[in-house]
Amino acid sequence: MRMYDIIEKKRNGGELTDEEIRFFINGFTDGTIPDYQASALMMAVWFKGMTERETVTLTEAMEKSGDTVDLSRYGSLSADKHSTGGVGDKTSLIVTPIVASLGAKIAKMSGRGLGHTGGTVDKLESIDGYKTTLTGEEFLNQVDEIGLAVIGQSGNLTPADKKLYALRDVTATVDSIPLITSSIMSKKLAAGSHNIVLDVKCGSGAFMKTPDDAETLATEMVKIGKACGRNIAAVITDMDTPLGTNIGNSLEVIEAVRVLKGEVDNDLKTVCIVLATELTSLVFGIDTAEAEKRVNEALSSGKAFEKMKQWITAQGGNAACLEDFSLFKQPKYSYDISAEKDGYISSMNTEKIGISSVILGAGRESKEDSIDFAAGIVLKKKTGDAVKKGDVLATLYTDREGSIANAEKMFLEALSISDTAPAPKPLVYKIIR
Amino acid sequence: MRMYDIIEKKRNGGELTDEEIRFFINGFTDGTIPDYQASALMMAVWFKGMTERETVTLTEAMEKSGDTVDLSRYGSLSADKHSTGGVGDKTSLIVTPIVASLGAKIAKMSGRGLGHTGGTVDKLESIDGYKTTLTGEEFLNQVDEIGLAVIGQSGNLTPADKKLYALRDVTATVDSIPLITSSIMSKKLAAGSHNIVLDVKCGSGAFMKTPDDAETLATEMVKIGKACGRNIAAVITDMDTPLGTNIGNSLEVIEAVRVLKGEVDNDLKTVCIVLATELTSLVFGIDTAEAEKRVNEALSSGKAFEKMKQWITAQGGNAACLEDFSLFKQPKYSYDISAEKDGYISSMNTEKIGISSVILGAGRESKEDSIDFAAGIVLKKKTGDAVKKGDVLATLYTDREGSIANAEKMFLEALSISDTAPAPKPLVYKIIR
Repeated sequence: MRMYDIIEKKRNGGELTDEEIRFFINGFTDGTIPDYQASALMMAVWFKGMTERETVTLTEAMEKSGDTVDLSRYGSLSADKHSTGGVGDKTSLIVTPIVASLGAKIAKMSGRGLGHTGGTVDKLESIDGYKTTLTGEEFLNQVDEIGLAVIGQSGNLTPADKKLYALRDVTATVDSIPLITSSIMSKKLAAGSHNIVLDVKCGSGAFMKTPDDAETLATEMVKIGKACGRNIAAVITDMDTPLGTNIGNSLEVIEAVRVLKGEVDNDLKTVCIVLATELTSLVFGIDTAEAEKRVNEALSSGKAFEKMKQWITAQGGNAACLEDFSLFKQPKYSYDISAEKDGYISSMNTEKIGISSVILGAGRESKEDSIDFAAGIVLKKKTGDAVKKGDVLATLYTDREGSIANAEKMFLEALSISDTAPAPKPLVYKIIR
Repeated sequence: MRMYDIIEKKRNGGELTDEEIRFFINGFTDGTIPDYQASALMMAVWFKGMTERETVTLTEAMEKSGDTVDLSRYGSLSADKHSTGGVGDKTSLIVTPIVASLGAKIAKMSGRGLGHTGGTVDKLESIDGYKTTLTGEEFLNQVDEIGLAVIGQSGNLTPADKKLYALRDVTATVDSIPLITSSIMSKKLAAGSHNIVLDVKCGSGAFMKTPDDAETLATEMVKIGKACGRNIAAVITDMDTPLGTNIGNSLEVIEAVRVLKGEVDNDLKTVCIVLATELTSLVFGIDTAEAEKRVNEALSSGKAFEKMKQWITAQGGNAACLEDFSLFKQPKYSYDISAEKDGYISSMNTEKIGISSVILGAGRESKEDSIDFAAGIVLKKKTGDAVKKGDVLATLYTDREGSIANAEKMFLEALSISDTAPAPKPLVYKIIR
């Protein structure tokens, strides 16, 4: 078998055999197939796509290219969620303790933030003492005991995907449905959970800009997940506006805690209830009405918040800060951005708002950058809100006084103010089961 | 400027600017743009093509990536020919002395054979003493004196094309009209001649399998050549059957000499007259009727053959062997292939016939292989000929007795014998001026 023939076949619109796909992934992972042939194949796939069978085979070949997590001890109770990434997206901090409090077993590996989107691991590190690295034994022991552990990606999971994604990232071959699907799903499969809920974001802050594109991706991921033997659902949610009000690491932990404690009732809470309901329904094989009842009960009873405290404590974090937010590291500077005229916020370019928070120190522009956990933005007005000249639109928090002007400029560029209120948009577009 | 953006732009069907194309070629040549980005761009070009302006810019950028030959001292008299490659294609050995004998200045660099097609430099090396390497000064001095010199590719000509072609060759991106055009034309431009005739082959022994494909390529090359300020024409000729009767290095020199001496009148001679006529017409700015008259006169008067002897002698070769073919190295073995049944030769897979000659030792399977100059095939019957069982179809020559069975098998596989004569096909399909 020759890589040349595989490239040519796909270039000509052919369907690759399982053997050809495995030959490529194995050879690319062990370095016998060079990057320049892999990137030519990726571009051919970008143009010609892949069938469902090809995508399943690619996904499984990447899953099996490295270590996999064995969660078989939890039977059908293991659960995971994945978000395609957004701004202010702290749903994992809320959904996992809810579903774990209902009896699911969540052994979750999360990522770090890069570019305009944040990462769960960074957010958790804003809690003093929280350990994002555990040994495999510690990780599963904690899940055995309290049903929930969240660590950074560790071990040699899906090395084929890591290497291929890095190559796609510099060769303009990222935005291909079968390639995105196989990348995400290979990691989820390797992470071992039987039940998976995907939060597929769409809008100005998301990778998928339109509900249609998001639905195409969500449908494909659900298909592939099922074909690989998992219980799976995908929820398509809005990311045309940041989710909730808080953007930045400790700021997002605080907002998550407030949702779990019942102190806020906003778009973030709504999305979390939908995601938790879907996952609960999958894990326990119950209908969504029953699942939603249990989710709401977990919140109103305080069981979900108790689960979060248990989890943070078990993982070395100072849970006292969840009760007293002043225990979080405090930012040196705060700055109110005021409305320059009367009107309605008609749109928020959410990617730009994410970048504004990165400028303040809340995120990374490159992998090596360090993060200021206290930095970020608290939104006072969101899309659809009426504003009067002088109203505070948002408060910026940072240790870098010099960054404030740039962050404000980027934030104001992101906002459109119009004379009339914009038509309301759905928060949850569709659920693919 | 970022290579990523250039790949993405082409992938999305955009037209690259001159600056973007030069950025790519310069960066790829000096190694700052990695192979994996170049191969992704090549695949995007394979799918999306290039405009005429893009192709001109790419061609000129590759031309200027290394040394160029300055033939300005010959004004409008400098002349070159290029063949896209075939089996039994010894036209350069015939056309260049004809046109040089008429007063053109031919400072030609030729290639070596690889795979099923031969190379002019290998054929010339079958002449004892012939030097395929000259210094730049020796090369042009010889052209000053006798109007003709033919050497191997030397110096650092079009390094960008060399590197890019090697990459395309292993990433299934060779067969793209703008990429083939820019590769061939960059080399021709760097070689410096003002007048260029292209022999674009089509058929089973050629890169372009159909007259339509060959015409597309020929038209593009002529356009690009003109846009780059050269006098240029392309002749589309048949390569569905080997050209002439002899395949193999000294065998082809012998057939070329016999055409120049007027001893044979076959398809090879016809094609050479057309090519020489086109080139003569370009060099002297005369119509093709007048040019053809001069070409025929050069042949019938013996002037062209005298020019060949002058040339071979000037370049160190033993011109006596052009008069006495027994002075060529002789093969150890000869073998007649006989017809197994009565009928007509309805087709000859010319690539397979080329491979048969390579098996005998006449060519290279890889760049490192050495060549047996005396090895090869002399065809006794060609497409359209009637054969009777037992007739000799071809004679094989080789030093490797053990190769004969395989070469015969490959040769016979290439032949189709039918009960009725095939429809005759044109030898020259079209001339693009």
